Amino acid sequence: MLLALMQANSAVLDVEANCAAVEAAAAEAAAAGAAVLVTPELFPVGYAPRQVRAQLDVARLPGIKAALSGIARRHHIGLVYSLPGVVPGGGPANAANWNITSTLVDADGRTLLDYAKVHLFGEDERAAFVPGTERPAVVDFNGIPTSMVICYDVEFPEAVRAAAAAGAELLLVPTALAHGFESVPQVLLRARALESQLTIAYANHSGMEDGCRFLGGSVIAGPDGDLLAAAGEDSQLLLAEVDVEAAARARGAVPYLAERRPDLYRSWEF
Amino acid sequence: MLLALMQANSAVLDVEANCAAVEAAAAEAAAAGAAVLVTPELFPVGYAPRQVRAQLDVARLPGIKAALSGIARRHHIGLVYSLPGVVPGGGPANAANWNITSTLVDADGRTLLDYAKVHLFGEDERAAFVPGTERPAVVDFNGIPTSMVICYDVEFPEAVRAAAAAGAELLLVPTALAHGFESVPQVLLRARALESQLTIAYANHSGMEDGCRFLGGSVIAGPDGDLLAAAGEDSQLLLAEVDVEAAARARGAVPYLAERRPDLYRSWEF
Repeated sequence: MLLALMQANSAVLDVEANCAAVEAAAAEAAAAGAAVLVTPELFPVGYAPRQVRAQLDVARLPGIKAALSGIARRHHIGLVYSLPGVVPGGGPANAANWNITSTLVDADGRTLLDYAKVHLFGEDERAAFVPGTERPAVVDFNGIPTSMVICYDVEFPEAVRAAAAAGAELLLVPTALAHGFESVPQVLLRARALESQLTIAYANHSGMEDGCRFLGGSVIAGPDGDLLAAAGEDSQLLLAEVDVEAAARARGAVPYLAERRPDLYRSWEF
Repeated sequence: MLLALMQANSAVLDVEANCAAVEAAAAEAAAAGAAVLVTPELFPVGYAPRQVRAQLDVARLPGIKAALSGIARRHHIGLVYSLPGVVPGGGPANAANWNITSTLVDADGRTLLDYAKVHLFGEDERAAFVPGTERPAVVDFNGIPTSMVICYDVEFPEAVRAAAAAGAELLLVPTALAHGFESVPQVLLRARALESQLTIAYANHSGMEDGCRFLGGSVIAGPDGDLLAAAGEDSQLLLAEVDVEAAARARGAVPYLAERRPDLYRSWEF
């Protein structure tokens, strides 16, 4: 399965321009034969937590989601997008609570999977959003058990373990990683893929947004920890062939997941 | 604090020769000013699980431990050594059970910390030993909260997390890693150090023992995931200065340990 990853600069609160950029990337990825396009964290609204929280009209979110589903449908390609979400199922207190979500839609534009970011990074995110509490779920996507986490989540081995222990063999990760954190894609991402033996696609912003200089450096890492593709600093579309048997092969060679000792870990209470 | 790591080839079941090699390394490390010497997994007996289990007289173990303590005392240097151990506290069933242990002794030869390997690797180890069940403990060593795990343990993020969550800022890891697993020291070890923000010293065998070609490639990684020292394939003494404030500094910059969500992880039951 060919996987495409969009590394790009987003225009803060210019939703139309950002969705047009997603559509252009979807067209290019689909033309190359990709089955899915992964886009960066909060890309359609820009990575600017406080500004987005203050200025985005929550009533626009359903329309933005419909537009993104339309892009997937028009180009017949799966799509991972990330948007703010209103925390569901609460009274007036929760109505004021937003989280950071990601959504996987299929090539018909239907939602397959939703996720809310569990580990918020830094003061700006904590001022604008509340953290999720749900374990990353797993869904079948083109025959591959697939899950999602967002940005800072993936730096915690526990988040990726939870997805892998639920059966994930592919993890799609929108991110917004600043310059200076090169070791996250180059060391941590490779380790997450290797230790939990799954393929990880980590799609970052590039350039400046809201005063932050982003790293670029998006990567796709395979279940042996090797990089299948790695981006430089600038905007680009990354492509990598995901071997649908690679996770099972790695898990057969060194059975990390089977040789975990979860009962012990729980008894240790750390 | 200067840390020394012995990467060397062990002679299977030639305890006198192996202890002499430890003594030579301890002398060299002490002369360089090192406060501790970390040696590879099962080094004094050789890495040959089935042979050691079949041929080592258990009655020799106290004498070997006393000899190793004597090396530490004579050269006034801390020492981490790894030996088979008889599982304590059982009846006749347990008397037949051996595990793989590591011991940290201080520069006076007194035992500060014991550990039993929790994750056994491969059929040979499982045929010869039983796995430990105790969480890695933490002890003060020259002002640094210090813990140990052994070899395959460190490939599991859970094992290192348990030590870090208990306060460890230095993790000493005897290992026996075969050729072909370069990504373990080069990717996983760096990630363990970075994600749990501690210094890790990973001391491997070199050369052939019992038909296995060892990787060498021992590393010392700091709390930012950078390698402080890395060995090639051959026997050598590695030295690195451990900055006693580096762990606290890293944890202040990106508070991974404080921003874990252990209650959630437990509720996810993975």
